[in-house]
Order: sequence, then C-alpha cells, then structure tokens
Amino acid sequence: MATATLDNRNDRATRLASLRAALESGTLRGAQRMINALHPAEIAHLLESLPPAQRELAWELVERERDGDVLIELSEEVRAELIDEMDTHEIVAAAEGLDLDDLADLLAELPEVVTRQVLKSMDQQDRVRLTAVLAYPEDSAGGLMNTDTVTVRPDVTLEVVLRYLRMRGELPERTDCLFVVDRDDRYLGALPVTRLLTEDQEKTVSIVMDSEVARLFEGRDLLSAAIVSSSRQLLGRVTIDDVLDVVREQAEHPLLAAAGLEDEEDVFAGVRKSARRRALWLGINLITAFIASWVVGLFEATIDRIVALAVLMPVVASMGGIAGTQTVTLIIRGIALGQIQSSNARWLFFKELSVGALNGLIWATVVALATWAWFGTWEIAAVICAAIVINIAAAAVAGVLIPLALQRLRIDPALAGGVILTTITDVVGFAALLGLGTLFLL
Amino acid sequence: MATATLDNRNDRATRLASLRAALESGTLRGAQRMINALHPAEIAHLLESLPPAQRELAWELVERERDGDVLIELSEEVRAELIDEMDTHEIVAAAEGLDLDDLADLLAELPEVVTRQVLKSMDQQDRVRLTAVLAYPEDSAGGLMNTDTVTVRPDVTLEVVLRYLRMRGELPERTDCLFVVDRDDRYLGALPVTRLLTEDQEKTVSIVMDSEVARLFEGRDLLSAAIVSSSRQLLGRVTIDDVLDVVREQAEHPLLAAAGLEDEEDVFAGVRKSARRRALWLGINLITAFIASWVVGLFEATIDRIVALAVLMPVVASMGGIAGTQTVTLIIRGIALGQIQSSNARWLFFKELSVGALNGLIWATVVALATWAWFGTWEIAAVICAAIVINIAAAAVAGVLIPLALQRLRIDPALAGGVILTTITDVVGFAALLGLGTLFLL
Repeated sequence: MATATLDNRNDRATRLASLRAALESGTLRGAQRMINALHPAEIAHLLESLPPAQRELAWELVERERDGDVLIELSEEVRAELIDEMDTHEIVAAAEGLDLDDLADLLAELPEVVTRQVLKSMDQQDRVRLTAVLAYPEDSAGGLMNTDTVTVRPDVTLEVVLRYLRMRGELPERTDCLFVVDRDDRYLGALPVTRLLTEDQEKTVSIVMDSEVARLFEGRDLLSAAIVSSSRQLLGRVTIDDVLDVVREQAEHPLLAAAGLEDEEDVFAGVRKSARRRALWLGINLITAFIASWVVGLFEATIDRIVALAVLMPVVASMGGIAGTQTVTLIIRGIALGQIQSSNARWLFFKELSVGALNGLIWATVVALATWAWFGTWEIAAVICAAIVINIAAAAVAGVLIPLALQRLRIDPALAGGVILTTITDVVGFAALLGLGTLFLL
Repeated sequence: MATATLDNRNDRATRLASLRAALESGTLRGAQRMINALHPAEIAHLLESLPPAQRELAWELVERERDGDVLIELSEEVRAELIDEMDTHEIVAAAEGLDLDDLADLLAELPEVVTRQVLKSMDQQDRVRLTAVLAYPEDSAGGLMNTDTVTVRPDVTLEVVLRYLRMRGELPERTDCLFVVDRDDRYLGALPVTRLLTEDQEKTVSIVMDSEVARLFEGRDLLSAAIVSSSRQLLGRVTIDDVLDVVREQAEHPLLAAAGLEDEEDVFAGVRKSARRRALWLGINLITAFIASWVVGLFEATIDRIVALAVLMPVVASMGGIAGTQTVTLIIRGIALGQIQSSNARWLFFKELSVGALNGLIWATVVALATWAWFGTWEIAAVICAAIVINIAAAAVAGVLIPLALQRLRIDPALAGGVILTTITDVVGFAALLGLGTLFLL
C-alpha cells in the first residue's frame, strides 16, 4: 500500500483538530512546536482553516524567519489580513530571502511606505531585477518570472560547464535546465541538467542543447521555461510550481464568480466583512428578481382568474433556468480553456438549440401530463407545455450568446453570465406562461 | 515585452481558424502539416476545440507514431470517442512507448480484448510494473505513479554515481532527483541532480541527499516525489505534470457537477449524446420544481384573494436562493480544499447565520419599502419583509448543513448540494410568504 496520497485529508484533519485544541486550551508551547514542524505550505493551509481569533494566535507562533515563506503560500485575502497586523520591520524581515516573483506578489499588496523600505533593504542588482518583474501583471508569465537563471554559452564544452557549476556552488531551486545565450544575452535554447550528467563531456553545449524557441507551459510537460523579450533577450524563467497556483485559481474562478464571490475568498473571514461583500451581490440579484416580478405583475388580472398559472410559475422558470445554466457553464468553461472562438461558435449555437429543442419537447410533454393529472384540464396543460418549450429554447440561445457577447464587451462572463441568464429565463418563462394563458384561457 | 504569455490565446485562435478553414476547404495536406508541427498537447487542444466531423478528420491526419502522446493529453470523453473509432492494432501501436502511468490511464478505458493485446505486446518487466500501477485508483498517487525511477545506494561517492549515469545514458523525462534506497529497496531519501553538479565528487550520497520521508505534493514546491509502500519500499515516483491535470480537474469539479455535467465534459459532443446526458438533470430538477409548485398550490385560496403575493413570489425565492448559493459554494469549496472539518464547522455555522441575519434584515427592509411603493399597502410589505428574513436565515443554515451532511452520507456535495438548497429556499420562501399572508392578510 502506498502511504503517500495526493489528498492527505485525514492527516490534516487530525492536525487541525489537535492544533485547535491546543490553541483553545492555551497550551501554546505545544501548538508552537506543532506548527513549526510543518512545511510552510502546510502552515498556510492550517492558517486558512482557522477562524480569525485562532488564526491570529497561530500566526504569532510561526517562527519569524519562516514568515515570508508562509505568507507567499497563503491565499491573497488571508495574506492581506495578516500583513495588516504586522509592523513595517516585521514585513521587511519576512520579505528577505524570498524569490523575486514571490516578492513581487507580496509587494503588490503592501502599503507604499513599506514597499519603499523593502526596496531600500535590497542590493542594487536585486532591485533592478525586481522592478523588471513588477512591470508585469501578477499572473502573466512576466509576473511569475524568476530572474535566477543560470546561463551558459553555446560554444563551450560540457566539461567547462560542469567546472563552472561546481565553482558556482548551489543552483537556484527548481533548476531543471540551464539557458543557453549568445554574447548579447539572446536566448538560443535550453540545456537540461540531466544531459550534463549523461552526455560525453567533450561535446559542446550547442550540440547537446534543445534549440527550440521559448515554449509555453500550458499543456506542456515542462518544469521551467524561458521568458524572452521581443528581441529574444533572455529575461528570466517561470517554474511550474507557480503555474500550478494560477491553474487552480483560474479553474475555480467561474464557480466563485457565479456566486458573486472573490477569487480565493476566505471562508473564515469575519461576519461584518463577509456580510458587506455579499450584500452587493444580493442587491444586484434583487433588481433582477423585481424585473421578473414586474413581468408577473403585468398579468395580475390573468392570475386572478386562473390561480393554477401562479402555482405552475416555478416549474416553467426552473426548467429554463436549469437548461440555461448547463449551456452557460459549458460555454464559459470553453471560453476560459480557449476552446471556443468565433470560428466554432456557430456550430455550438445550433447544437445547443437542438439539444434544447429535444429536451424541451420531452420534458414539456411530461409536465403537460402531470399538469393534466393535477388540474384535470387539457387547456392549462397545453399552455404550460408550450411555455416550457419556448423557455428551454430561449435558455439555449441565451446560454450561448450571453457569454460570447460579454466576452466581446470585456465583461467577465463568469461573473455576469449566470445572473443575466436566469433573469432572461425567468422573464421569458413567466411571460410565455402567463401571456399564452391570457391569450388562450381567458 | 515578454513574447511568451501563459495563455497564448491569440496564437491558438489563429491556428484553430486556419485549421478549420483548411479542413473545410479540403486542403488536407496543408492541415496535416499544420497539425504535425504542433506539440501533442496543442494537438489535443485543437481536437477538443473541433465539432465531431472535423475532429475525426483532424485525428486521421495525426501521424501514427504520435497517436499515443496525443491520446493521453486529451480529456477523457474526447479520448474515449476517438479510441472507439480505432482498430485494435492501431491502439496497440499507440500504446507503445507511453509512460506507465499514462498507459495505465489509457488501459482503464479500453475494451478488455484490446487490453490483453497491449499487455501481450509488452516485455515481462514492464507488464509487472504496469500491473502495480493499475492496482491504484486513477487519480491517487499510485495511479499517477511512474516506475521509471533511477535509484542509487547511500554509501557510494558522487563520482561513482556520475560514472553510473554516464554509462546508463539518457535519464527518464522530468528527473529532478535520484532516489536513494538501501539493499532491500527501502527508500532513504532523494538526491537532487543539481547537487550532483555542484557538490564535491568525493562526498558520499548519504551526506549530500535530502533524507526526508516521502513528502506530499499538494502545496509543496516539488517536481517529483517518491511513492513508498508501508514497509518503506520504493514503488515509484509521481511527477508534477500529472498533478497539474488532477488539480485542474478537482478545481473544476464543483462548477460542472452543480450543473449536472460530467468532469471534463466535451462541449463539442454530438446533439443526441448531450441531450441524453442533460435530460436526467432536468428531470431531477423537475421533481424539485413540482415540490415548490405543490407548496404554492396549498395556498391557492390565498393567492386567489391577494394576487400581489403571487407577483412577489419570485423575489422571496430568489433572495433565499442567491444567499444560500453563496454559502453553499464556499462550504463545498472549503470541504474540497480540506479547510472545513467538524472541528471548525460550528464556528462557520454561526458565522453564516450571522451574515444571513444581517443581510436578510437589510435587504428585507429594502424589499418592504419597494413593495409599499408598488402596492401601497403596509401589510403586504410587512409580510414580504418577514418572509425574506426567514428565507435568508434558512438559506444560511441549509447552506452550511447540507454539504456537511452529504459528505457524511458519502454523496458528492458538489453534485447534490445546489439542487437540495434551492428546493429548500423555494419551499421555505413560498411557504413563509403565502403562509404569513394567509395568517395576517386574509
């Protein structure tokens, strides 16, 4: 049996429970020992799993010299909260010894006066490099970039490279290849370190290296990749551990955005902070709910005469909402993965419309039969049947077009797509049911 | 300016557009050249972005010897579709030369007769190793495991290791460390290859190696990790590129499951296949919609006398649904990330209840004012105000308890949580509004 599992949840649950017990009972020495025996990433996970008061207490127990490593492993929100409580000199101390890409992330969140302090405490070369990294958006290749590359020339032999490395001492973390550059620092290719070990030492670098152009991570099995400027100057490298965080955050984004929540939202944030944040989303949805109500209000006279229509309103709205959510979820994900572009959107539009028509007909028939059994009238059954077909078809159309339109307008489809969709399916559903009812049943 | 960006969407869009144009115009030679100039991961992405007919055509154009590499990069559904169309001997050929972990994934999806053929075509040692990998669930450390580790003894010098490696020739892909084992193949630690390059060659392995126990990936900056048995026997290693896929899939799961969609759902699946799959989810939701309708039906007499209540129904249901969705999304994510356990669930319960009460009061007041302005009666305004407070509070309670209860029952919270929640907020919302209306307004 393999003891290492990818999600070591039981270990974590036990650890969290005993840490909470120690914090609550005030046996801080024990808690401190437990915390500092962990890897910074595990400490970060523990902190993220604690309510505010215990979180602050646990953070105090982390050894000072590990503060920086723990901070960069934390989700943004929790990190900002802890930094808020730190003194300037504590922050400056924590920033020391971090990789440049991590430091750049951290600095982006600090008040300017602290940033200046940190910059002052660095040597000239690091400061120049840091400024280069800071010029890129956080999650872009530039923002993830480290400038701790080891470069070699193409015309030397492997033996020379080996001698140079031994002289140089320790290599930067996660170095799986050296970068080959010419005299003007222009990127020529990568030399995997494993090849230094297996190839004949008399060969020159240019023969052994991979002379691809700088390639991209996504979907590639690379551990680190070179970042080059448009003039092919080597700027630095990105390592896959940073990409891992970005991938997780991007994959989660649609889920959180659809509920009006922030990326990396802190589930243990305080009551007032959470309430304030979520209030806005409830307000936006209230407006859309009133729009639906207003549509229903237009048909007050109809409902007054045929109450069964009011009873059936939730069914029509819900079927449209569910069908539309399925479509919109797939389309938003497809856009995020870069699978959907204008060239294949037409095909998808007709596909979703066909799926909607097919499922609409099937379930509208079922609902019609149920309605007939419930209310004993064929007329109402026919009206709800038609309303459901119309609403599910409208849901399919809206489900494809809304995300694509939002994307063109540069509005995040994941944030606004769901709200707009359910507003449409509510309005179309109510209008179809009550409108057809007004036409044919009165 | 850095030319390499993490999401090279423009490149991809252009590539996809020109490939589609080539496929449509029948210039297959051009299409073939374009496809085979790409990395297997990019080919997989292109295939996933094509409608069925063009996808099959493009797949035919992929060079035979790259079939295997492309197949393992594809999402499960698309892979299964393409394999369905292949002959046994084509599959056996594609399986050759794959890493064992990838091969194990592939085999899990093949008909048994083909699996037997593939196994027959392998040599004895690989067959034994493959069987070991197949014994673990696909996404567990064991299932992701590769057995292509390079092992060394602790008591030899680095010079001996270097000589051995040079003799051995090429190292397995993504080798960032060698594993140190004793005479009985028991795992002792890892020897980063970079250290072979920088450390004194006279030192022995045991001095230079990292003698940690086998550590876990999640949250760690490792590129590969050893997998050991309970008796500390080295079984193999997991590399981070495989972990990347699992992380993306796990992060996306709640989004897709909440809409009743499969993991890695193929957005370009055919109409009939998609309709069949989604129909079930619509059916389940239909049942819950009828439950809500039935509750409304109980109050038919009330609606008959105060139609305004029917008009306001969508507002009450929607406010509860939105508030509950926010809570349930956070809780499901927290469970998936291992942040929420019974030890901190109590705190969360009271937190969400407080947030719900706070936002409930605020927005209920707003709705009451709007209702008063609309219908000009204080009585209805008071009833809807109370109904919204009750529903948002119920949503908070349900939003915390449902996912935790489902998890205990070993039902996927991401799949069932949302449906159950909105059923509850619909039922509670309608019952509160119409029930209070019956009590106080008639």
